[in-house]
Amino acid sequence: MRQRPRLALVPGEPAGIGPELVVRAAQRSWGADLVVYGDRATLLHAAEAIGQPLRLISPNDPSAAGPGALAHVEIPLTVRAAFGQPEPRNARATIGSLETAAGACLQGLCDGIVTGPVHKAAINDGGIPYTGTTELLAAQAGCEVVMMLANDIVRVALATTHLPLREVADAITADSLERTLRILHAALYHDFGIEAPRIAVLGLNPHAGEDGHLGREELDIVIPLLDGLRGEGWQLIGPLPADTAFLPSKLRGFDAVLAMYHDQGLPVLKYSGFEHAVNLTLGLPYPRVAVDHGTALELAGRGVADPSSLFAAIDTCTRLARNRLHAGT
Amino acid sequence: MRQRPRLALVPGEPAGIGPELVVRAAQRSWGADLVVYGDRATLLHAAEAIGQPLRLISPNDPSAAGPGALAHVEIPLTVRAAFGQPEPRNARATIGSLETAAGACLQGLCDGIVTGPVHKAAINDGGIPYTGTTELLAAQAGCEVVMMLANDIVRVALATTHLPLREVADAITADSLERTLRILHAALYHDFGIEAPRIAVLGLNPHAGEDGHLGREELDIVIPLLDGLRGEGWQLIGPLPADTAFLPSKLRGFDAVLAMYHDQGLPVLKYSGFEHAVNLTLGLPYPRVAVDHGTALELAGRGVADPSSLFAAIDTCTRLARNRLHAGT
Repeated sequence: MRQRPRLALVPGEPAGIGPELVVRAAQRSWGADLVVYGDRATLLHAAEAIGQPLRLISPNDPSAAGPGALAHVEIPLTVRAAFGQPEPRNARATIGSLETAAGACLQGLCDGIVTGPVHKAAINDGGIPYTGTTELLAAQAGCEVVMMLANDIVRVALATTHLPLREVADAITADSLERTLRILHAALYHDFGIEAPRIAVLGLNPHAGEDGHLGREELDIVIPLLDGLRGEGWQLIGPLPADTAFLPSKLRGFDAVLAMYHDQGLPVLKYSGFEHAVNLTLGLPYPRVAVDHGTALELAGRGVADPSSLFAAIDTCTRLARNRLHAGT
Repeated sequence: MRQRPRLALVPGEPAGIGPELVVRAAQRSWGADLVVYGDRATLLHAAEAIGQPLRLISPNDPSAAGPGALAHVEIPLTVRAAFGQPEPRNARATIGSLETAAGACLQGLCDGIVTGPVHKAAINDGGIPYTGTTELLAAQAGCEVVMMLANDIVRVALATTHLPLREVADAITADSLERTLRILHAALYHDFGIEAPRIAVLGLNPHAGEDGHLGREELDIVIPLLDGLRGEGWQLIGPLPADTAFLPSKLRGFDAVLAMYHDQGLPVLKYSGFEHAVNLTLGLPYPRVAVDHGTALELAGRGVADPSSLFAAIDTCTRLARNRLHAGT
């Protein structure tokens, strides 16, 4: 068994800022050994553009890579990437790098995956049905997953993600919510190493329904479910009104907040620390952490893109992978 | 015409922290003359409980009230108020104080109203149908209104307020949204004195619908409406994804954010400065500003309640009333 975790690193869209952020990560030492899955020429070109050294070495011994070097598995592009110009013909390779890296995790070759931003339209224009990397990894692993965003202030998990607002209420059922809570609870316990996770659950309706005056889902679905899970010894707080649940004084009492939908949970998270936010996929057989920003095509190759989110993602994934490795010993 | 605005001050629930916050306000000098509408015995009892002086003087010349004194219009309770114990028999007087103070504004005797927290259940238990002070004032004045919450960081107006989440999407129509935007724009111009208000409008759906992939309301309703209003010279930004619209760097470019619903707009507002937040009702013939907290029954009479929100409400209402007075000269 490895003492140091080994993380697969996937740059994402080759024409965006992902490759140069990977180059920046190569200049530092980390608590994990990194293996980048991507196109060699793209990575070297990004290094040159931002004036940083990069050596790509064999993936057989990633721990041999010092500063300026990265272990590397080649996933060649179809056509050469140009900064700022996504190329649908490279869609297959972009998705392939994700699938190959995730496959390495599923086979135990790597202990977690850190992913850069993907350009959804370029993938779809390339003829590949793709709704998001979270969904892709879940399908590949045959898992149900939960999306969580986290920064230094708060961890927010979502009961529903990319749904039109009018479909949200019907998508929240006792079954779906219980599955979400079980995945979240297990991740906080196993991955984050929190003995007795305290989870705040937001109400679906304003004021958490105000005793049924502003909607009945809290009374009919949320409260009975939470009461049942409390019977298993879980520490669940709520359902709480979303507007006051994020008050700094309250957040200190929670290990995570479960929001019922996207725009209920994420505005505070992004307001309170966008630069250091990461996006986690809970429920996979391995930890996955992504950057919480897009491809920033207009910045690519200029050396000005902020690597904070990728660095935070590597650190977070390292911690989660280490907890899993140690739990396995 | 008055040079200094005259503001009606309504303590709200007599058993809560409202009366003692009014006593605290009496210790300071303000940019407006204050006239408190409430029960004399309750106010004097609160003053005694928190060890602060209070003299209640005639409302005929509020400017004569120095520190420790307040001009006062008597609205007697039915039974004596006890700290922490709302009394349904006092519901009529509590609502009466609001209606009388608002009436004074409608008659031009006062230039704005500042209201403390009301205990909804006690009012309803007292046999008075009441859904909120905002609704009460709107009905009394025969106006359509818009609710806005504001602190030093951001002003958030709401297109819908206290609705079950599943009713939100259908409540957003081109007509309702246009009326809301016109009230908001007029208030920013006339009350806040902003020459060319910059209003950020959030999408209803996550990612503002992502070109129709996550809901069509942006394409069908919001975008055509905004385009039409831009034709009138308005500065409208959006529809914006709610999760990133509140990034501090973006907020600096907006005079107000219009959120489509309660839990989309208020979490960041409360996170970013709960203590100094105030609740405004736009669209009335006079400015109305309320505290952004509840009755805090458990704190009443102990002298520990934080007056920041009431003080911010008085300051904000003073500024709005002054802008209206000067616009009238």
